[in-house]
Amino acid sequence: MSTGSAAVIGGGVIGGGWAARFLLNGWNVKVFDPDPEARRKIDEVIRNARQSLPMLYERSLPDEGELGFAMSVAEAVDGADYIQESVPERLGLKRKVYAQIESAAPDVPLGSSTSGFKPSDLRMGLDSGARLFVAHPFNPVYLLPLVELVSGGGDSGILESASRILTSIGMRPLVVRAEIDAHIADRFLEAVWREALWLIKDDIATTGEVDEAIRLGFGLRWAQMGLFETYRIAGGEGGMAHFVEQFGPALAWPWTRLMDVPELTPELVKKIGDQSDAQSEGQSVRELESLRDRNLVALLRALKREGSAAGRVIADHEANLGGEDMGRIPMITVRRMVPSDWTDYNGHMNESRYGQVFSDAADAVLAHVGAGPDYVSAGRSFFTVSTKIDYLLETHAGETVQVVTRVLLGEGKKLKLRHELRRASDGSVLATCEQFLLHVSLESRKSCDPERPVGDAIKALADAHGQLAFERTGESSQS
Amino acid sequence: MSTGSAAVIGGGVIGGGWAARFLLNGWNVKVFDPDPEARRKIDEVIRNARQSLPMLYERSLPDEGELGFAMSVAEAVDGADYIQESVPERLGLKRKVYAQIESAAPDVPLGSSTSGFKPSDLRMGLDSGARLFVAHPFNPVYLLPLVELVSGGGDSGILESASRILTSIGMRPLVVRAEIDAHIADRFLEAVWREALWLIKDDIATTGEVDEAIRLGFGLRWAQMGLFETYRIAGGEGGMAHFVEQFGPALAWPWTRLMDVPELTPELVKKIGDQSDAQSEGQSVRELESLRDRNLVALLRALKREGSAAGRVIADHEANLGGEDMGRIPMITVRRMVPSDWTDYNGHMNESRYGQVFSDAADAVLAHVGAGPDYVSAGRSFFTVSTKIDYLLETHAGETVQVVTRVLLGEGKKLKLRHELRRASDGSVLATCEQFLLHVSLESRKSCDPERPVGDAIKALADAHGQLAFERTGESSQS
Repeated sequence: MSTGSAAVIGGGVIGGGWAARFLLNGWNVKVFDPDPEARRKIDEVIRNARQSLPMLYERSLPDEGELGFAMSVAEAVDGADYIQESVPERLGLKRKVYAQIESAAPDVPLGSSTSGFKPSDLRMGLDSGARLFVAHPFNPVYLLPLVELVSGGGDSGILESASRILTSIGMRPLVVRAEIDAHIADRFLEAVWREALWLIKDDIATTGEVDEAIRLGFGLRWAQMGLFETYRIAGGEGGMAHFVEQFGPALAWPWTRLMDVPELTPELVKKIGDQSDAQSEGQSVRELESLRDRNLVALLRALKREGSAAGRVIADHEANLGGEDMGRIPMITVRRMVPSDWTDYNGHMNESRYGQVFSDAADAVLAHVGAGPDYVSAGRSFFTVSTKIDYLLETHAGETVQVVTRVLLGEGKKLKLRHELRRASDGSVLATCEQFLLHVSLESRKSCDPERPVGDAIKALADAHGQLAFERTGESSQS
Repeated sequence: MSTGSAAVIGGGVIGGGWAARFLLNGWNVKVFDPDPEARRKIDEVIRNARQSLPMLYERSLPDEGELGFAMSVAEAVDGADYIQESVPERLGLKRKVYAQIESAAPDVPLGSSTSGFKPSDLRMGLDSGARLFVAHPFNPVYLLPLVELVSGGGDSGILESASRILTSIGMRPLVVRAEIDAHIADRFLEAVWREALWLIKDDIATTGEVDEAIRLGFGLRWAQMGLFETYRIAGGEGGMAHFVEQFGPALAWPWTRLMDVPELTPELVKKIGDQSDAQSEGQSVRELESLRDRNLVALLRALKREGSAAGRVIADHEANLGGEDMGRIPMITVRRMVPSDWTDYNGHMNESRYGQVFSDAADAVLAHVGAGPDYVSAGRSFFTVSTKIDYLLETHAGETVQVVTRVLLGEGKKLKLRHELRRASDGSVLATCEQFLLHVSLESRKSCDPERPVGDAIKALADAHGQLAFERTGESSQS
């Protein structure tokens, strides 16, 4: 999927998140928001996104697109390949915006971030209404992959096209087949929010206690399996049917207060605000955002390693990012941002992560010569016998680094690599590594010569890399 | 907190989880359950727990306690320091069990795993009812830290004692001040479950789509912040009060169906069962449990690295586990289980994790000589200049390993360590590492001699370690 131009109408927390996700995936973005503060607010969201989204991947994202601010809706949508509306949740306002979009760009896919309205409500009175759909994201839009797509009788070709676009910027479209108020996820959020308000109002729990009750227990289950598969397990060997039979009757018990809505009196609003202040212990919203984004990066990376849930979405997107150009001499084997979970208490990249980067660099060489995961599945592999790492300069989370690799020796079962880890911004060498690998048979666990094409490819690299001084890398170098 | 003896009454998924958590934290456990299958089921839960709980920590848990099966409630509770009841959710059955406990052990803290009943309901008619409280855990009990503690007018000294015991086995007691049906967390689960049943019944979404809607979006937020702090951020610079004002009115909109309870007709039960079967793609409950546990270990370890939410509970527990006895010669600097997120596509421990273990071993030496985090905060540190690792044998997730460390050189600013990574079960050497460190001033970023006591402590170690052959480790060794 190639990149394009996106128009973002409405530049609040959600619109800013959309802008950031498109930009960091290489799209150009034009924003329209009449708020004079919009530019500052969007810049803050994009700054957060730059320090977190690239950390999800072990490869580089495309070069960032260009961000522009338009003076009108018409100017923003002019030439756009995709339009996303995220203005406040007032039906009249949304319809007014759609009318302006219609006269300037009647054919472009138009998604609405609405958390509650149905597409058939939104498109009422529009000639171009069939290309309008709900594309409901979750905050922070640049990190959470879910987007609910609701067509509600709109153009199915447009919805498919939108689905491809959203997938190409790392999201996971969940197509909601029937339109209902609040789609799917927000119905759950609404139900929990009501119950939580009762607990606060009745002094059963504080806001902080409610959050603990969620994040130390079922929140962890829901981050990786959701509701039904969790309960399937809880049913034990009897499975889902057993669980429903066991748990079902409790539904009729008077456990929840949800039949009734607590009145949001000034007293209740103040109580919630005060408890929330106490819970956050003086941390600003900006600090909480950073904390949230660090946590989400850590959780998403953890799930990615396991290939589960949201982590699988990240991994799929990464697979489409494309690797480095391995045909260059010397080879660039790794190019990536140092993620926040790689730092130690000194605040710089933990020494073991240097080892990881060099291990990834070796994997890139092996994949390039045809000795990647498929080769391993077929019963052959290179095992690392020894590594010698020299640590030269410190590096920190958020920096982009790359590894320049040379094949020093490639003879029979022996493979020797030399890597340089460099800071991408100025080319300074952060660490060097000499790595000795042996080719083994995974059945006999003994060393042996590699398959013919692999051996030949390694030999060709060793010959090519031997020809040139290691320093001629095309990168500036601090010596 | 020292360990003791726990009685577990009821050996299903929850009782088994309790047994596992106590056992793996060094407690002896006696189980009573009349089900002839109970022993097999509990063994399976404990097997899962052994392969996951120790992975949360970078240190060893205490030696596992002894598991016994009693022929009666009276035999199970005899001599117990703590009793946990996890029989099915029938008030009559629970009261019958309490009467048997009362005659055998009237003074011991007695927790009930009930997910719905109030303690005042449970203790009705008991003489020893004041020592009964709700201790409601979350499945899997051996991994999720949350336990809701509800006294409901019971003995406050007993509740405090129970709270200390549960904390000592790595849980986080959330004391619920007022007793209500379903305590706190299950009210949310109940609300979401009802809404989910409507969505399935009305064909808005399948069980798989509901799970995606949760785990790709707000599930990730709830695993680390919960509800209110997430919304505080969503309020943007206006904070919580702004959010409530903005979001509040939607409460009155007819978004949810919760005023009404869907009837669990055989058709609806079958629909849920069929969709759940399709979603799980033929994976057995055992396979799903493994998947869940791997995911939870990964999420909990991610949060632990960030020091957030459930991760902080794990870190606090680890701090109380106590380190290795560093006074031994040679030093055991690391002893831990290889966690599942440390393996590569070959299925064995990734080469970078060898580096991490050796880095942790160096940190243990530095802490021992007085150059730990406090010393770093004061502006001095040792930086690793180079490491040379030889990889000898493969190791896998779930194995317990230890590092034997010798100080080869400790003169002025120079420190040289030699580590051996060994499999704990048979002492085989998996890898060796020579590590060269330099003492630096964090202000000048230049090398300098360490503070006097640190330098002296290192010199003493180097002298002591020079005296003995490295091979005399007290461990059996494969040569």
